[in-house]
Amino acid sequence: MRNILVTAGGTHENIDSVRSISNHATGRLGSMIADTFAQKNFQITYICSETAVIPTYENIEIIRIGNVASLAETMETLLIQRRFDCVVHTMAVSDFTPQALISMDEMIESVSNLLQMENISQNNISDMVRSAIHQSSSPLTDKKISSKTSDVALLLKQTPKIIGRIKTLQPKTILVGFKLLSNVSEKELLQAGGNLLIQNNCDFVLANDFANIENGKHKAVLLDKNGVIDTADTKQDIAKIIFKYVSEGIGIK
Amino acid sequence: MRNILVTAGGTHENIDSVRSISNHATGRLGSMIADTFAQKNFQITYICSETAVIPTYENIEIIRIGNVASLAETMETLLIQRRFDCVVHTMAVSDFTPQALISMDEMIESVSNLLQMENISQNNISDMVRSAIHQSSSPLTDKKISSKTSDVALLLKQTPKIIGRIKTLQPKTILVGFKLLSNVSEKELLQAGGNLLIQNNCDFVLANDFANIENGKHKAVLLDKNGVIDTADTKQDIAKIIFKYVSEGIGIK
Repeated sequence: MRNILVTAGGTHENIDSVRSISNHATGRLGSMIADTFAQKNFQITYICSETAVIPTYENIEIIRIGNVASLAETMETLLIQRRFDCVVHTMAVSDFTPQALISMDEMIESVSNLLQMENISQNNISDMVRSAIHQSSSPLTDKKISSKTSDVALLLKQTPKIIGRIKTLQPKTILVGFKLLSNVSEKELLQAGGNLLIQNNCDFVLANDFANIENGKHKAVLLDKNGVIDTADTKQDIAKIIFKYVSEGIGIK
Repeated sequence: MRNILVTAGGTHENIDSVRSISNHATGRLGSMIADTFAQKNFQITYICSETAVIPTYENIEIIRIGNVASLAETMETLLIQRRFDCVVHTMAVSDFTPQALISMDEMIESVSNLLQMENISQNNISDMVRSAIHQSSSPLTDKKISSKTSDVALLLKQTPKIIGRIKTLQPKTILVGFKLLSNVSEKELLQAGGNLLIQNNCDFVLANDFANIENGKHKAVLLDKNGVIDTADTKQDIAKIIFKYVSEGIGIK
């Protein structure tokens, strides 16, 4: 039996115990893709967020995850322990995670203090500015940020790119990446999709624009290393074309 | 028939078209409170977030809202147009909304440039720093923030305090406010609850700590202007004591 790993939904990065940065994604597309493969007798492992839609077929292994770190750990373990014929990575993974809270008033004050110093050394100015900013920021904790705090900025750091690990851990799997942009030109979308494909050694990339997803429609293009190979108008279409090219790729016609 | 307005769930403040800052809140407590009043023949209007749990009783008017601005507009309109005997405001309303994205590298550079200027006027240093920060920030749009952006901070601004408007618009309604903190001492919780009560002219405040909500338990205290008047151990308890004091307050025994 063929094994396939499908990820779906969006990650949630905690800011404090009651707030998070969420990537909107219902998991509906991922669940349809999983169901399409399940219908053709594939064995599905389905990683999704707490609130994501899950597939309707039985015998699908559902693994719920919360933030990018837990997704990375889960995928790393699975890709080391099991062999997957294909990985369809639809999940909207947060590019950023909250790192610290900067008090803007404190930052302005500590930078202003620097400016009032006489005979400032010109050699390490940017380090001094960095350090002044650092002094005005506090790490995030599981306490709730006070509602009285005014003028704050949330310092974000980049999360590790999980998609880049997939082919490193399983060079023979067929990898389908997803690129979602919002309100861009078709040229820009195809370029971003192509870059994702090359950088992460994807076999296929499904590229779509948030502006073209509404009222039951979901326009998308499927790319391989030569460019656009197919198009879709609905989520059902997307599931169909992904199934078609993946099953051709693994020799099931 | 008595009218009551219940708010439930948490608001979502958009960062861009695919991400938001969410306040976690399922709406379960609010839905139980609404059901408790509905059972006693109250007419319920229920304002909640897109994903919140809704009450099980029929004939409850459900109004879904997204962010703080839409909540404020909806409540303002309702409180002007209709009379409510009571408002139970359980909703987790975001204290902050994203305003702009600051590039940390650009900010460090433009502040460093200030420091390299000779004969800097000492009168308006903090204005100059503010302006350098402003130049390094860009407004949020419905475009998706590029996943390549590194070292950014999200500038947050405070949202208007909706609870403060309720008694201004309907001085005779019985207002129940909610204070949720996380991992604080009991003294700090009671103080924060008392402050919320006084500042917003609440009749009652339900104060609870996130650390005391788990495994079906939900510890909370109910305050009025004289201090603690009752306690609860579960969501069902909370719904009961709120019903008890509110119905006494409006003369139904």
